[in-house]
Amino acid sequence: MDVSANKDVGGDAYVVGVDFGTLSARALVVRVSDGAEAGTAVSEYPHGAIDRSLDGHGELPPDWALQDPADGTPLCQLPGLATRPHAYPKLWKHHAAQPHADRINAVAHERGEKWINRYGGKISSEWQFAKALQLLDEDPELYQRADRWIEAADWIIWQLCGAETRNACTAGYKGIYQDGGYPSRGYLAALDPRFAGFAADKLAHPISPLGGLAGRLTPEAAALTRLPSGIAVAVGNVDAHVTVPAAGPVAPGKMVAIMGTSTCHVMNGAELAEVPGMCGVVDGGIVAGLWGYEAGQSGVGDIFAWFTANGVPGEFAEEASRRGVPLQQLLDEQAGALPTGSHGLIALDWEGGNRSVLVDGRLSGAIVGLTLATTAPEIYRALLESTAFGTRMIMDTFRDSGVPVTDLVVAGGLIKSAPLMQIYADVTRRPLSVIGSGQGPALGSAIHAAVAAGAYPDVPAAAAVMGREERDVYRPDPARADVYDELYAEYVRLHDYFGRGTNEVMYRLRAIRDRAWKARDR
Amino acid sequence: MDVSANKDVGGDAYVVGVDFGTLSARALVVRVSDGAEAGTAVSEYPHGAIDRSLDGHGELPPDWALQDPADGTPLCQLPGLATRPHAYPKLWKHHAAQPHADRINAVAHERGEKWINRYGGKISSEWQFAKALQLLDEDPELYQRADRWIEAADWIIWQLCGAETRNACTAGYKGIYQDGGYPSRGYLAALDPRFAGFAADKLAHPISPLGGLAGRLTPEAAALTRLPSGIAVAVGNVDAHVTVPAAGPVAPGKMVAIMGTSTCHVMNGAELAEVPGMCGVVDGGIVAGLWGYEAGQSGVGDIFAWFTANGVPGEFAEEASRRGVPLQQLLDEQAGALPTGSHGLIALDWEGGNRSVLVDGRLSGAIVGLTLATTAPEIYRALLESTAFGTRMIMDTFRDSGVPVTDLVVAGGLIKSAPLMQIYADVTRRPLSVIGSGQGPALGSAIHAAVAAGAYPDVPAAAAVMGREERDVYRPDPARADVYDELYAEYVRLHDYFGRGTNEVMYRLRAIRDRAWKARDR
Repeated sequence: MDVSANKDVGGDAYVVGVDFGTLSARALVVRVSDGAEAGTAVSEYPHGAIDRSLDGHGELPPDWALQDPADGTPLCQLPGLATRPHAYPKLWKHHAAQPHADRINAVAHERGEKWINRYGGKISSEWQFAKALQLLDEDPELYQRADRWIEAADWIIWQLCGAETRNACTAGYKGIYQDGGYPSRGYLAALDPRFAGFAADKLAHPISPLGGLAGRLTPEAAALTRLPSGIAVAVGNVDAHVTVPAAGPVAPGKMVAIMGTSTCHVMNGAELAEVPGMCGVVDGGIVAGLWGYEAGQSGVGDIFAWFTANGVPGEFAEEASRRGVPLQQLLDEQAGALPTGSHGLIALDWEGGNRSVLVDGRLSGAIVGLTLATTAPEIYRALLESTAFGTRMIMDTFRDSGVPVTDLVVAGGLIKSAPLMQIYADVTRRPLSVIGSGQGPALGSAIHAAVAAGAYPDVPAAAAVMGREERDVYRPDPARADVYDELYAEYVRLHDYFGRGTNEVMYRLRAIRDRAWKARDR
Repeated sequence: MDVSANKDVGGDAYVVGVDFGTLSARALVVRVSDGAEAGTAVSEYPHGAIDRSLDGHGELPPDWALQDPADGTPLCQLPGLATRPHAYPKLWKHHAAQPHADRINAVAHERGEKWINRYGGKISSEWQFAKALQLLDEDPELYQRADRWIEAADWIIWQLCGAETRNACTAGYKGIYQDGGYPSRGYLAALDPRFAGFAADKLAHPISPLGGLAGRLTPEAAALTRLPSGIAVAVGNVDAHVTVPAAGPVAPGKMVAIMGTSTCHVMNGAELAEVPGMCGVVDGGIVAGLWGYEAGQSGVGDIFAWFTANGVPGEFAEEASRRGVPLQQLLDEQAGALPTGSHGLIALDWEGGNRSVLVDGRLSGAIVGLTLATTAPEIYRALLESTAFGTRMIMDTFRDSGVPVTDLVVAGGLIKSAPLMQIYADVTRRPLSVIGSGQGPALGSAIHAAVAAGAYPDVPAAAAVMGREERDVYRPDPARADVYDELYAEYVRLHDYFGRGTNEVMYRLRAIRDRAWKARDR
């Protein structure tokens, strides 16, 4: 999520963009006149992602992912609630609410709720309503004690300017806010009678447009941030969507893929279309006046990091250490040097579930083609490729729904990996442009701050000056693209076999797993 | 393969059994009167298995597996032939002759050759005819220069007593010798006109029964082995089959699974039956007077060793080193401690191809159910289980063909792993007996030596005295067996999907892989 504020330093006007990621926050100071980056800082959260256990309070069930908020008054900081997992903020990648997402979707289709098709027919377990319904189901007392249900992006803005806001992006995608309203009381009651008032009691608030002014920095927040009190604070936004203007001129059909622990694909469109299995389409969800489309992959950098930590023998770590490079960079190099297709492997990129096209957190990863000669860099390359196939699947689905991708720009931490970028160019068979900042979300946030502070009339105008991209940095190689066409056909076959109900083995394995852990706990 | 000789020491009679494995040879000195083991020695081959490159002579293609014979006059030791891969002995796990095995099978079925059903309808690429046909295809000059085509078991006996023999076991299984003859000249000519004389010119020789006298130790071999010249030398045998009498009393329906780098399942039957995808059934192939059934799994210990070397992060190796235990033992312990089913994984055990039921060296391994929380010990356990599922599949196929397995005894190096043994008991839902010697093949070989030397009238009589088993060492746990019934059902589904033609992705991945390496070489 992203927040932003502005400040005038020595005649030149500056804005600060802050990007709160899964494991750290990154702040960027940007000059308003041209987008030049004057300074940056990164701060890691002391607790990171909490997905195994609460300190000293027992193990969490599978698929949980929480955070420890270090200020304010979230429920977990109230007396007696520190040991209640549901009192903690749930990270985006908390997937334990999948059964609740299933219920949300089933009831929406039964009742013919129109909004469901704006979300590809499926609301994600990563989003507000599923997580809130899980809380109600599993800890109803805590549900009652929560006065407001709020995304961290809006909560942080509240801490900064003392006023609650609800930004259009978060409300539209994660909060199912469409055509001026949340899902109806009748629908919510059909999910659970106790849930009928969820939107009216815990969410309802006027929606703020992106780039709007949320308020002024309070003296308390000024002391905390060491910025002058009273400066403009922009409304919050989602890290992916906020990045679009950071990648230069805004245009329909220009897909920006923000590749980090997960990937978000965001794109503006002039028309409204319904794309199966998309995350969502929201009016003004990225830029006011255009339809904002979002799709994504739950695990990307997360998958590479998981494999690097869990699947690579010590000799590689030793070599990386000798050469003074990170292990993941060594793997990138060795994987990148392999001839395309030479590993004989195909992988599905669902180790963190599937966020788009299939929209199912219960899916899991698979690797096919292992032999006794298979090496760790070969598996690593197959995992890199699996995420590129996942992106191609999303782009193909957009195209087939009448929303063609005309331009692909990548942003996020993974643009550092040239082998990965080349694989994406070869797999998608199109030139890859790269965002011109190493801090896309923070720069995008700063652009929104400049608009909130009145330096530009709107976000596209600010983007044209302050954003930047490097065009066609990676170009596809036709011979490699031919091999990838063959491998992608295999990916599609396995994708449909495991993901569209032919063999629901992944669900069953997950159910067996969950039973096994429960039986052990008894 | 196994060879044996006998010697009288200080009044007590002793026999020596020698077991030539993939990477080392093991000799065992055994007292004839009771099977007591008086001494043992292991010698590793300097070159091990040659599967990547010939020293200094370029890389080998995929799926090759050769050996370096250190005495005698194999072609590779003749002037000018050291750089010709086909001049080297091919290891059992050389799988590059799969296209030739396919041709052998297709032509056999076209012509209605009766012997093909004795081999489950498919001759393996690991066997004589496929490897010889590959030689003829790929290096016809070398094929012409080979006077004889002989298995190492018989070749070593030849070195020991100066007389060529052909043992009933090798001839029957690997040499397609059935009902008194090899495949006909007409059939061989249909494979390739130049192949018509293969059996008559390079194989033909009287067949020697197992436990028979091959000859007497020559003075040259006596000098080499430091045994007295003139002592009895038994005919050779295959390591798996020779182990059956080492596991105590011989009886129909008693399956002995010899679990090492690969697993062989051998069992005597009173009647002839045709089991789909079995390796073979041979009259007297294990013990004279009974039908010897053989099935197997191409990779078992090989899979565990591959994963241990290629898929386990350094921290595990460090812990093993701190505790002074082999890494694989640490993995065994950690994998064994997991609740059954808790990893949410299912794997196919085909990293080395499939030897029985499907009989296809081009199949490969697969793992389904990976998540970002999956650990190396969890994958390792899924691989252990995959081989147990493969064994259950073989036992089920025997049962369905009217040759029920009534008793399961395990032998081979993997009996050291108690967690693995317990998994096999739980997966097969039957008590597991264990051979009473750490050197089953060498002990079985010694038993055959005792018969060859005239100390016992036949192999069953010697087995009853010299062989031994520990009954029902591992007993199945009903709750774990229930979970495994569910996981086995998933295994069967994936086995049939990938292995029986629904999705031939594994073949295509292999073809893409082979093309990629060839393109790089050009």
